[in-house]
Amino acid sequence: MFLRNAWYVAAAREELKDRLLARTLLNEPVVLGRDRSGTLFALEDRCCHRAAPLSLGWIAERGLICGYHGLAYDATGACVSIPGHKGKIPKEARVRSYPVTECGDFVWIWMGDPVRADKRQVIDYPPDDPINWPRSHGMLHVKASYVLLLENLMDLSHLSYLQRSSIGSSPEDSADAKIEVKSTPTGAKFLRLMLTATPAKATVLRQGFTGQVDRWSDFEFVAPSCVVQWSGAVSAGLYQKGVREGGQSNRILHAVTPETDRTCHYFFCAADGYARFEASGARKAMEVSEIFKEDALMVEQQQLRLEGYDAGKLLNIPSDVARVKMARFLKQKIQEEQAQVTVAAE
Amino acid sequence: MFLRNAWYVAAAREELKDRLLARTLLNEPVVLGRDRSGTLFALEDRCCHRAAPLSLGWIAERGLICGYHGLAYDATGACVSIPGHKGKIPKEARVRSYPVTECGDFVWIWMGDPVRADKRQVIDYPPDDPINWPRSHGMLHVKASYVLLLENLMDLSHLSYLQRSSIGSSPEDSADAKIEVKSTPTGAKFLRLMLTATPAKATVLRQGFTGQVDRWSDFEFVAPSCVVQWSGAVSAGLYQKGVREGGQSNRILHAVTPETDRTCHYFFCAADGYARFEASGARKAMEVSEIFKEDALMVEQQQLRLEGYDAGKLLNIPSDVARVKMARFLKQKIQEEQAQVTVAAE
Amino acid sequence: MFLRNAWYVAAAREELKDRLLARTLLNEPVVLGRDRSGTLFALEDRCCHRAAPLSLGWIAERGLICGYHGLAYDATGACVSIPGHKGKIPKEARVRSYPVTECGDFVWIWMGDPVRADKRQVIDYPPDDPINWPRSHGMLHVKASYVLLLENLMDLSHLSYLQRSSIGSSPEDSADAKIEVKSTPTGAKFLRLMLTATPAKATVLRQGFTGQVDRWSDFEFVAPSCVVQWSGAVSAGLYQKGVREGGQSNRILHAVTPETDRTCHYFFCAADGYARFEASGARKAMEVSEIFKEDALMVEQQQLRLEGYDAGKLLNIPSDVARVKMARFLKQKIQEEQAQVTVAAE
Repeated sequence: MFLRNAWYVAAAREELKDRLLARTLLNEPVVLGRDRSGTLFALEDRCCHRAAPLSLGWIAERGLICGYHGLAYDATGACVSIPGHKGKIPKEARVRSYPVTECGDFVWIWMGDPVRADKRQVIDYPPDDPINWPRSHGMLHVKASYVLLLENLMDLSHLSYLQRSSIGSSPEDSADAKIEVKSTPTGAKFLRLMLTATPAKATVLRQGFTGQVDRWSDFEFVAPSCVVQWSGAVSAGLYQKGVREGGQSNRILHAVTPETDRTCHYFFCAADGYARFEASGARKAMEVSEIFKEDALMVEQQQLRLEGYDAGKLLNIPSDVARVKMARFLKQKIQEEQAQVTVAAE
Repeated sequence: MFLRNAWYVAAAREELKDRLLARTLLNEPVVLGRDRSGTLFALEDRCCHRAAPLSLGWIAERGLICGYHGLAYDATGACVSIPGHKGKIPKEARVRSYPVTECGDFVWIWMGDPVRADKRQVIDYPPDDPINWPRSHGMLHVKASYVLLLENLMDLSHLSYLQRSSIGSSPEDSADAKIEVKSTPTGAKFLRLMLTATPAKATVLRQGFTGQVDRWSDFEFVAPSCVVQWSGAVSAGLYQKGVREGGQSNRILHAVTPETDRTCHYFFCAADGYARFEASGARKAMEVSEIFKEDALMVEQQQLRLEGYDAGKLLNIPSDVARVKMARFLKQKIQEEQAQVTVAAE
Repeated sequence: MFLRNAWYVAAAREELKDRLLARTLLNEPVVLGRDRSGTLFALEDRCCHRAAPLSLGWIAERGLICGYHGLAYDATGACVSIPGHKGKIPKEARVRSYPVTECGDFVWIWMGDPVRADKRQVIDYPPDDPINWPRSHGMLHVKASYVLLLENLMDLSHLSYLQRSSIGSSPEDSADAKIEVKSTPTGAKFLRLMLTATPAKATVLRQGFTGQVDRWSDFEFVAPSCVVQWSGAVSAGLYQKGVREGGQSNRILHAVTPETDRTCHYFFCAADGYARFEASGARKAMEVSEIFKEDALMVEQQQLRLEGYDAGKLLNIPSDVARVKMARFLKQKIQEEQAQVTVAAE
């Protein structure tokens, strides 16, 4: 079960440059594209004639053409031309279409009731500010439930172990971190603080800290699929004085879109707030994708260990507070939506 | 469910040259071979002793020898020697054998009741005429139901899309094609005519047409697995005068044998009627296997889109007449055979 | 169903040198290792916190540390440290541990009730005698039930077919072999004799026999997973005089450990009794693993042919006596154990 009335990242914008993109989203085959008139569309990737994938066809002036027998569809999924067919095209000749929109570096899709799709709910983050916050994006295909990746993000104690040789603080600093967890109308958030802590290896390497640092991680889960991150490190004592600039500084959108029940696409867009303080050519930033690959490997293995296992036997530990809040919120939202669907069907 | 009382192509002849061939046909493991005395055989590929594949054994003077514990079988599937066993061999010591015969470039197998196997029903096509109709054969393993491939052959409107850059006519000519569909005692056939039409790219390239052409496609489905093709193109106006020679001209046997419910072997034997009109060394014929690979790719993707999908929701279009007739005939034949089996079992 | 109250080979000793080893045994994920204090351990490979594989963590002074969130476990499976947790650790915070022991070149594991694990039952074979019986070991991962591999070992008539070009005798000598089969308290054994027989090709090549030989094979199945082999060949006439040395001579432990219902790890340790009679540098022994790969290939194919097939239809032949006795013994032991479990649960 997935939350359907929600925006999910479907693709990076450049994936739709002059081509049709086939992607399974929430267990459904979808073809994404932009027609020659500039209209973006997302359609069921299965022709209503012989079930051929429309993604094997061609972009048209308006919509696309099936590459098997030439049926043409417009961007709303209506069939507008059938080779050999004279007269009016029956209205059953159509495929499902999904609302889509662009925001940031991504194309977003709404997999639920189209009339409820409100583009103002799309998350516009990180800032479009190439001078102060140069950003880049990427995607990893992960053979695990999207929930495991979101849970990974909502408990940062793993950094000291899984990422110990790069961005992790020492286990001791991590165990002593002050964590403040809050509910929000759309999910949950936490602020994790390590004041006067040993800087992570990657931070020493790039920002050149010689002493202790104040490190903060401000993470907000926005159901069902995103985590908005603002995190950084400044010299010890500066955090309490309100300083957030000049040291390590990252604004990242994590958007984890279910492909199937057991696989997902992990999209991310990361803005680097330290670049402007760095001498040109001296850039020593790690690729965030290298960090995220470590997370992906772990959750894929976790997924395997959970197959056929009763997850109810697992034990929570102190660092799980935000993760548990996030998981419960998501589960409740899905149950509520399912209940509405049931009521609507009665 | 497959039609069992029927001949299917099992292999190309040269596949049995000095070796045993393991092949799954209609979901059953079969070993095919020719023993040293020259007898062709097809047996269940599972030793009656420990279930070892007989195809891992050796060809004998008569029959074969299991490569695990040495049981010998004759070409009828009877076990004729058991190492260490004295006395008469029990008649239960045997494996199933299947009638086989050779015709054209292929070895054919009968998977049903052996007493009903009539070799006169095997399709002898295209003609054995190396001067006028030089022929060649090939095989593609396709991860789709054999029915999807047969259906692909019975609706040629796809040529203008899937094969638009090679053998397809223009979409306009294709939409205007005159199609005459008929039932036959063994299936269905159609004649598709495009008179005074633009020649396909491959035809221009090879036969050098400079003007319009008359193009015909005469296709007959012979249940359960074959399509007999005769097609060609001559200069516009000649078709009505009875001319069939001098231009593009192909006689092809398509024999699509189920491997499993979702996979098949697509055998084909194509005779080229233009070769004799062509200057020696000037041969510019496309490999038909390159064309058929495009069909194979499409039906494999179609198969994936049909998994777990109710095919009853799909819509027929005008070009589907012959395809629908073919599919219904095949379905009915299978139902009739199943009913007979039920009666026989009562 | 597997026999659980029994020792199985889990790994070769050197596989645990400075690393954690993940291995599925009897369908359960296990992590094997030796901590820095020297203690060997085998634990459930699934952290009790978030189900991460413990095998992705690190060896500690005592036990290991989970590589995801840093929980520490001792060699008994008890969690001894949870990052951020103050106070006593609840006793539910633990993973299952399995008794382990070392013997010969292997590490053995007990997958049943720990209180019943008696290390005296571990098979200490072949002899630890590097001068007279130099030994080596290996392992093959086989995609077949462990039972098929054990059955392969308890009917040597296959040597004349599957290994005809190496260690197999002639089919005639094999058919005439005298075989004495006996039940034992822990399984079954057989003595297979070919007196005045043609030597196998590998034997001629290495031991240089110019005439006939006496060949013996003394095999004992010890339930549930081992076969103890002593076999060899001496010049014809010597066997009856009690001579066993100077010719081909092998002592081998075969230990076949289920991974899943359809896959296994085939461990073997082979001691070579001829090496001491051989000129230095003249060693012409075949790698036994090359022989065993032939067995593995065959049983993998046998497994495929048995999928969805009623094995009850298969026929036994004279050479099957020991194999059948072995298979029945194993089946009965498993049934008895299952019955005990049921009684205990009531």
